[in-house]
Amino acid sequence: MVIQSKQNRKIKQIRKLFSHKGRETEKCFVFEGKKLFEEALKSAVPLVGILVARRFMDTNRHQLDAISSEIPVEVVEDHIYDQLSRQKHPEGILCIAKYFDAQIDLKRSQHLLLLDELADPGNLGTIIRTADGVGFDGIICSDQTVDFYNDKVIRATMGSFFHIPIYKTDRFEAFIQKLKQNNFFVCATSLNGNLSQESPMPHHSKNALILGNESHGVRPQIEAICDFSWKLPIYGKAESLNVAVAAGIMMYLTVIGDKK
Amino acid sequence: MVIQSKQNRKIKQIRKLFSHKGRETEKCFVFEGKKLFEEALKSAVPLVGILVARRFMDTNRHQLDAISSEIPVEVVEDHIYDQLSRQKHPEGILCIAKYFDAQIDLKRSQHLLLLDELADPGNLGTIIRTADGVGFDGIICSDQTVDFYNDKVIRATMGSFFHIPIYKTDRFEAFIQKLKQNNFFVCATSLNGNLSQESPMPHHSKNALILGNESHGVRPQIEAICDFSWKLPIYGKAESLNVAVAAGIMMYLTVIGDKK
Repeated sequence: MVIQSKQNRKIKQIRKLFSHKGRETEKCFVFEGKKLFEEALKSAVPLVGILVARRFMDTNRHQLDAISSEIPVEVVEDHIYDQLSRQKHPEGILCIAKYFDAQIDLKRSQHLLLLDELADPGNLGTIIRTADGVGFDGIICSDQTVDFYNDKVIRATMGSFFHIPIYKTDRFEAFIQKLKQNNFFVCATSLNGNLSQESPMPHHSKNALILGNESHGVRPQIEAICDFSWKLPIYGKAESLNVAVAAGIMMYLTVIGDKK
Repeated sequence: MVIQSKQNRKIKQIRKLFSHKGRETEKCFVFEGKKLFEEALKSAVPLVGILVARRFMDTNRHQLDAISSEIPVEVVEDHIYDQLSRQKHPEGILCIAKYFDAQIDLKRSQHLLLLDELADPGNLGTIIRTADGVGFDGIICSDQTVDFYNDKVIRATMGSFFHIPIYKTDRFEAFIQKLKQNNFFVCATSLNGNLSQESPMPHHSKNALILGNESHGVRPQIEAICDFSWKLPIYGKAESLNVAVAAGIMMYLTVIGDKK
């Protein structure tokens, strides 16, 4: 049965999952594209449904048949898929997955990234991709950080969303104290911090890097409990760097200290 | 006279300048927001007109009066401004400027950034901001690179568009040869390049870093004429980094070599 109407119950449910409120109600999220679908299959993320455009089914029947005993696959007319899609050039596959509990083992982790009220979905997605790229062990978000289940975030990670554990805590300060008790060196980034071209974090130590909001940076009460406040030197006329670029440079400098 | 209609000639002209075709016809471009307006005033960019919403005029009359003898300022009803605006939260000021010829003096330049067919306006804007932040001397784009006069590019630069010279050339390969004749070390970035944690560019030398398209990287015929192909090591599971993040890390590593 190919879904013919945009009033179909499934279509309406998916439309709700594009909003934060809808996700919080259903404890489910959605993402699109073949690459993310394949990365999700390789991960432990619990897929609960797949919606494909008729054209996608026609060209990927074999792959979809192989999983359809475990995950319900529904087919929809192309034009209805394209209306629903948030992709610029809809590929024709959308996955529905359940919220999951990421585990970050503090005993085994060496490099953690903490995000304090980061607001932009594209920045968050790019930062997740970079944290995966440089081999960080996990990401922890404060509760006012943009929802990482937002489809724009997942898209910008280019699959890294399924590679690196990420979770949100409403006890961000307590979590930092716990890190310190577990021998992590905790470093805030700050435009008022100590200038250093290199990562101030001791090599081969356990450490956590905190980045903040695009406008306001890390909150003062968070910066106050950190071991160090770090500012990258700016040599030109820009007032600051984009937060995802700053995160990339700082994570990279931290990791190469250990790889030398 | 406050503009009352969206059919007004000025409003129609501005709407055209949001498109590449319209800009090429008029050799003018537009950008929005008070911060960019102020950065433009401090720069040599030739402003030819300013459009403000009535609310913006009410609260910034003094500043606008001071420039109105040199630059025509037109006022528009708030709701017409907001319909025209491309900002999420329109501030109420839009500037029209003429295309300009940026000068990059190869004799005085030390660090140049070259962009080969970069496609995304947000990436280009972020890269311009970072190049300014790390103190690069100029940016040169191949002719298939996204138009840097696009308002999304200028917005993402956060003002750096007015700090660092940038231009486009349809003779990209010839420009690279000219750099080499002028003793620049020219380094392409490539996923098939030589792995190096540090910038391969000699310290205190003149050098040029080339980044490519988000999907295809630097074109092979460009990579072939460079002095070096550089790949940043990836320690995690991501296949690659976002190009603006990679640009940030690579420019930073290149510059700190000289600042130590």
